Amino acid sequence: MSSNRDIDALIEMMAKLPGLGPRSARRAVLHLIAKRDLQLIPLADLMQRVAATARECLNCGNIGTTEICDICAAEKRANGQICVVEDVADLWAMERGHAFKGRYHVLGGTLSALDQVGPEQLRIPQLIDRVTAESINEVILALNATVEGQTTAHYIADQLDGRVTLTSLAQGVPIGGELDYLDDGTISAALAARKQV
Amino acid sequence: MSSNRDIDALIEMMAKLPGLGPRSARRAVLHLIAKRDLQLIPLADLMQRVAATARECLNCGNIGTTEICDICAAEKRANGQICVVEDVADLWAMERGHAFKGRYHVLGGTLSALDQVGPEQLRIPQLIDRVTAESINEVILALNATVEGQTTAHYIADQLDGRVTLTSLAQGVPIGGELDYLDDGTISAALAARKQV
Repeated sequence: MSSNRDIDALIEMMAKLPGLGPRSARRAVLHLIAKRDLQLIPLADLMQRVAATARECLNCGNIGTTEICDICAAEKRANGQICVVEDVADLWAMERGHAFKGRYHVLGGTLSALDQVGPEQLRIPQLIDRVTAESINEVILALNATVEGQTTAHYIADQLDGRVTLTSLAQGVPIGGELDYLDDGTISAALAARKQV
Repeated sequence: MSSNRDIDALIEMMAKLPGLGPRSARRAVLHLIAKRDLQLIPLADLMQRVAATARECLNCGNIGTTEICDICAAEKRANGQICVVEDVADLWAMERGHAFKGRYHVLGGTLSALDQVGPEQLRIPQLIDRVTAESINEVILALNATVEGQTTAHYIADQLDGRVTLTSLAQGVPIGGELDYLDDGTISAALAARKQV
């Protein structure tokens, strides 16, 4: 590649990031070297700072810089609702929607017998503890609409049955979606859950 | 996004890299935080090292860590050939081919009246100096087969006319290429440059 050990190592590490391959990693590294003062040095500094401070919230599993994340620490978000998500990216996606005003619980994955992921690995016991400790009255299961996500949702629903109201996100036509481009399953679900106008 | 200033800033910087957008930057940052010791910290260290040491070769414009890059410093590569490329990525691509045994000259772009890029901005005077200083007998114009690349190639050919042998890369069907997927221009060029079997 570049005949330089450090530059080659940097390209190799960048190529391992999700979304980047060897070619885009080379382009990114050349771009960074060309913009050394404006991008490469600030990026390296930020990475070091994040590496030193980033940590999981002990309560919900969100990524932040404090033992208890800002969302869990906010008194006004203790409204009796917990939204259960698979991972931190899903939590961030929910927050970008600006619609949910309660707290979260990040499972850190889905149940998988194949990969030996059981309830203990998924912070499910912690969720059950929180339902009592934070006097929760509604658990919203915002898991992905995949087989793994729905299996995990069913397991959690079994565990919490009768103790709280359990809800899940509505399924149907996405906003701006065109019927012709939707899969059959989504159309069936939207039809079954139709509402009076 | 993450409600944390440093993490948000890191995502924003990563999203500016070529090949990454906001969504892939978020995924990459979460991936890095999850693999803090194996990826985030080594990546930050490598970036800092590269930022401190990477520099352009004074002779050819390649990126390395020394005043004169390894290729220019290698005595056995002084074989009288210079391969002219647009940028460092092209030089690396040539090197991956393992076919060229001479030295390079990186222009750093292409001539462009619109963007006010003239010969002075492109290290073309340095190329002309090198032809004499390094007793070059062949200049290979390995510029991209785009309008800008070919305009630049014509300009350099004019400047060096009569002083050295000027060659350019062959145009034709790529190895493994299927005719049905090639554009008309490539097929015409391959036909015009056909060879006896």
